[in-house]
Amino acid sequence: MPKLWNETIEAHRAAVRDAILDAAWALVVERGLMSVTMAGIAERAAIGRATVYKYFTDVESVLAAWHERQVAAHLQQLAEIANRPGAAGSRLEAVLAAYARILRGRGEHGPDLGALLHRDGQPEHAQRHLADLVRALLEEGVGSGEFRADVPAGELARYCLHALSAAAGMASEAAVVRLAGVVMSGVAAGG
Amino acid sequence: MPKLWNETIEAHRAAVRDAILDAAWALVVERGLMSVTMAGIAERAAIGRATVYKYFTDVESVLAAWHERQVAAHLQQLAEIANRPGAAGSRLEAVLAAYARILRGRGEHGPDLGALLHRDGQPEHAQRHLADLVRALLEEGVGSGEFRADVPAGELARYCLHALSAAAGMASEAAVVRLAGVVMSGVAAGG
Repeated sequence: MPKLWNETIEAHRAAVRDAILDAAWALVVERGLMSVTMAGIAERAAIGRATVYKYFTDVESVLAAWHERQVAAHLQQLAEIANRPGAAGSRLEAVLAAYARILRGRGEHGPDLGALLHRDGQPEHAQRHLADLVRALLEEGVGSGEFRADVPAGELARYCLHALSAAAGMASEAAVVRLAGVVMSGVAAGG
Repeated sequence: MPKLWNETIEAHRAAVRDAILDAAWALVVERGLMSVTMAGIAERAAIGRATVYKYFTDVESVLAAWHERQVAAHLQQLAEIANRPGAAGSRLEAVLAAYARILRGRGEHGPDLGALLHRDGQPEHAQRHLADLVRALLEEGVGSGEFRADVPAGELARYCLHALSAAAGMASEAAVVRLAGVVMSGVAAGG
């Protein structure tokens, strides 16, 4: 089946954009944030410099787009875990453990761009999205009697995400898993 | 009993210093951070401007000292609660609730200077002091069987402090008390 022309164009644009983001991040990891240039990104991605400028105005906007893509991928990963079949408790624990792993890994293979790029409201938007996801799981588990009903689900969600921020910089993967277990004990029914 | 001359001098210096800090903070609350001047502080404290300059070089150092005094007072308050008689569990819950109340109140009656003054290592020092205090209570409670022993006390202390950061900006005092209770469930034995 031949693709529609518009679809081909769209797919091509997305591929070029991804190549630019991948090249920029590779340079950040290898040479450090401050040494990345638009020319360097073009060379690394094997794309003409003029083309790179058609997609992004400067290095900062490339890195912001990389970070946005990264955050979106993490959110999608967490949403997929949340939507698996099974009890709310086991799904919430899996979401919390996965999020804690993400927080622990942030800044491990390169700088934490989220902390460096305070440009648009994107991270807060993502944080709200994540809070909504956790809250929905909590409400489900309160309904099924798995989680405590004496504290509003919104407050429990806030508690979960703040407690998990302890994962950033944790020494081991095992500590991260323990943390998720401790957080779960806080929301369990009869706790 | 007549005081020694040195003690009198010390007490006088401390009183002048406190008056300068009190005056500076009163001006911050009334007129806003940016409008505070050394002359304004002197006038408000009814102290000569030259005297104010003998104690502090600029407004920023006055505010940093105010914040340091505030943090020290909070730490002392929490240490007193931790050292009360009674079971480790009830003392830890009281410490966590008091700390959550402090976090909630921060920025309520004026700007959050801690967030604005990233000057010396003082806040990190205070944070470590607090973590040690919480950790000591946790170790005591693990020993007495009140708290879970499957997670190192240092990790539990880290969890407690991160989870309590959810108190900042919470809508009500009741929500803060609920938060402390949820955090306690996380560290309880058999959780």
